[in-house]
Amino acid sequence: MKIVVAVALAAMSVAGLQAAQVEAPQFETNQIETARELRAVALESNLGYEITEDLTTRIGNRLAGSENDARAVEWAVKKLESLGFDRVWTEPATFPTWTREHERVSITSPVEQDLVSLAIGFSPGTPEGGVEAEVVMFDDLAALQAAPAEDVAGKIVFIRKRMERARDGSGYGATVAARSTGSMAAAEKDALALIIRSVGTSTNRFAHTGTMRFDAGSRRIPAAAISNPDADQLERLIKMGEPVRLSVDIGAQVNEPYTSQNVIAEITGSKFPEKIVALGAHLDSWDVGTGAIDDGAGVGIVTAAARIIMEHAERPERSIRVILFAAEEIGLWGGRAWADAHKDNIENYQLAAESDFGAGPVYEISARVSDEAWPVIGAIHAELEMLGIAMGGRTQARGGPDFMPMSIHGLAAADLSQDGTKYFDYHHTENDTFDKIDPAEMAQNVAAYAVLAWLAAQSPVDFGSGPGLVDTSEE
Amino acid sequence: MKIVVAVALAAMSVAGLQAAQVEAPQFETNQIETARELRAVALESNLGYEITEDLTTRIGNRLAGSENDARAVEWAVKKLESLGFDRVWTEPATFPTWTREHERVSITSPVEQDLVSLAIGFSPGTPEGGVEAEVVMFDDLAALQAAPAEDVAGKIVFIRKRMERARDGSGYGATVAARSTGSMAAAEKDALALIIRSVGTSTNRFAHTGTMRFDAGSRRIPAAAISNPDADQLERLIKMGEPVRLSVDIGAQVNEPYTSQNVIAEITGSKFPEKIVALGAHLDSWDVGTGAIDDGAGVGIVTAAARIIMEHAERPERSIRVILFAAEEIGLWGGRAWADAHKDNIENYQLAAESDFGAGPVYEISARVSDEAWPVIGAIHAELEMLGIAMGGRTQARGGPDFMPMSIHGLAAADLSQDGTKYFDYHHTENDTFDKIDPAEMAQNVAAYAVLAWLAAQSPVDFGSGPGLVDTSEE
Repeated sequence: MKIVVAVALAAMSVAGLQAAQVEAPQFETNQIETARELRAVALESNLGYEITEDLTTRIGNRLAGSENDARAVEWAVKKLESLGFDRVWTEPATFPTWTREHERVSITSPVEQDLVSLAIGFSPGTPEGGVEAEVVMFDDLAALQAAPAEDVAGKIVFIRKRMERARDGSGYGATVAARSTGSMAAAEKDALALIIRSVGTSTNRFAHTGTMRFDAGSRRIPAAAISNPDADQLERLIKMGEPVRLSVDIGAQVNEPYTSQNVIAEITGSKFPEKIVALGAHLDSWDVGTGAIDDGAGVGIVTAAARIIMEHAERPERSIRVILFAAEEIGLWGGRAWADAHKDNIENYQLAAESDFGAGPVYEISARVSDEAWPVIGAIHAELEMLGIAMGGRTQARGGPDFMPMSIHGLAAADLSQDGTKYFDYHHTENDTFDKIDPAEMAQNVAAYAVLAWLAAQSPVDFGSGPGLVDTSEE
Repeated sequence: MKIVVAVALAAMSVAGLQAAQVEAPQFETNQIETARELRAVALESNLGYEITEDLTTRIGNRLAGSENDARAVEWAVKKLESLGFDRVWTEPATFPTWTREHERVSITSPVEQDLVSLAIGFSPGTPEGGVEAEVVMFDDLAALQAAPAEDVAGKIVFIRKRMERARDGSGYGATVAARSTGSMAAAEKDALALIIRSVGTSTNRFAHTGTMRFDAGSRRIPAAAISNPDADQLERLIKMGEPVRLSVDIGAQVNEPYTSQNVIAEITGSKFPEKIVALGAHLDSWDVGTGAIDDGAGVGIVTAAARIIMEHAERPERSIRVILFAAEEIGLWGGRAWADAHKDNIENYQLAAESDFGAGPVYEISARVSDEAWPVIGAIHAELEMLGIAMGGRTQARGGPDFMPMSIHGLAAADLSQDGTKYFDYHHTENDTFDKIDPAEMAQNVAAYAVLAWLAAQSPVDFGSGPGLVDTSEE
């Protein structure tokens, strides 16, 4: 797709380009003025910050399927109702659940030391009392996969791969495989347990949890992440040359399926009420920390953006929905249920955009929309530019994790990329708490979502959700 | 003492001052050259860093009286012997010990949330299953002391005072009273337990432990520190207006007295072997983290400084001793035992200086020495200046916590003040681990101690330890 656009541009004269711009669909002046008003109001507002404060303080963490999950759904319904949306409702999502009971990872030889650890989501428990064995260290998942089974059988595997810090969070994708599929890989070679260096950038002593993937028929072994300073310590001790033994004791349960709710609130459109701009975030969190940057921040950002539109703009032409998804962390279950329920009406979805990367400032917008709608994204970007947001271009934007199950059917989507330099210091740790959020950075996010949602709802053209937007790239 | 000096200086003419300077005792040129050589070598050496790495990796934490305490003593004797000191020996210190079994502090109403906590050293345990009650919040210890007993009785006290960050660590002294004596104060008003905001500056979710003071006859109640983000959370919830209840469950034991060892190593002086320059650090740590900045760093700094003198200078005129003290954290027991054993020979102690403030760079030297020796400190400072170390002046320097019990008898002492801006982010937390140390900053410390120890050992005059240096100031 990128190549096609480049060729087309190269073939056009400057005059032709200008003509194309003139012919592009335009916003009306008062619509742009409203966008600027929303942006100004949002930058001065603390509403997003206060919503996140309320959620993380009153509820705390909200593991999918836990009692706090139900309390969070109740909180969200009340909060959205109190903010004056036209409609607030819930839609069910059913998923397997997992409970952490305890974990303890310790060096037992040549010295006894406890390591800071968190079991990985859906890890099985160890036998009562744990397992104890010599550790075998690998540079990464590929090295484990390449190792002879006899080097691994009966041992505890330690994968030491470090996640690199980056603004766009790209270090995560390069590292997370050890967490996602390491347990299955180590089980194939009959290891007793898997320990990974945390998939995260914190230099403090916090383990980063997260979920593991598994197939119905696959064998998994108990798996935990240790904090990065503990991984350093374990590496140092291994390099000192004496055999190092670990004990791993995990108590965890996979429970009966649970039905939680996606919580949805709507500002009903004045002209095309059936057409929907969908702003997403997820309501669940991991069971450690209070889920502030992941994803209490997103809940605050998109809810406040919609509320500010309600208060400071006329009723939008299309409907704007806030969707607070269930059970994102343990497998995008809310997003999957939502896609199943709504994919037959995908053409009605004007645009989807989810905030699920903390509260760092938005630095770039990219989008996947129809050819006809593409100039409208440029016009929207013009109103985002004073927020420090660059044009990221026309990409296979998926709108965020919870919109991915619908994106594969061709959902028009925008990504407001946030600066994630510090995001993975806190992500999935006990340290993901409200104090990590900067209110000014959060307000910039709210402003960006308010402008995007408002203008997308007023757009002179539809954005083209449907088969025409299915991603056929081989990237 | 400051006033006397000021008056004397005011009374002297410029010519008189210059004459006094000329008459001041001088180092020989080759002694200064050696100091500069030591400084250069130390700045290029990783030895201090490696010693700390070895201690914190091989042993880990070393709570006074624990099995690791004994292992650390064994490690220290072997390490000091391997470094080639003339003599290595141990001297006993006996002290009460305390064991942490578990702690759990939770909000039980209006919402269930676990708070990150650490019991304070020598906290009694709660009754089996813990105590649960409404929380009553105070701004500081004084507010608790001023409160009517009926506002406190049967409740759980929360002291919310924040420690301020400062280069010289002065925020610590302004805050630590709640930890030291809060338990006794709350017990007097029949509270059930005491919770304090951690005495530390970390914005991460680490509780800072530390010891409490107690008199033999005093009543104490169970006490724990919660992390600063948890203190924020508790404050926010209290300010939302509903009554907040806490559960506090602490398991802890005060044990039989234990005898550990101060580990001492000597470079025997060539000319005045009975005169001693004493470099201190403490070998014990808290039972969380690996005691890297507190005080593995000090162990590395003073040991490396002495070793570099052994390798790169002629034998010093006076003896240089490295003293690795026992049981500093739980009440300066090693320092007290050492003072008891050596105070009758206090005149033999040329100078004492302890490194117990992490591995941040030294920015200032101050000292307490005789009038006659004061110009020598100026001459030493001249060789420290290129390390970025300013002259802090003639003060009631006590040489560090473990030398305090001897300092009250008039020990000549120097303080090499370190930049402690970040020290209290890690102090007494699980996060006090080796990765927090910057090797270049540590090398600057080693250089400073090597220069100080070498020149103090070569000084043309004694520094005057004894009754003449007893602190009579009313500060």
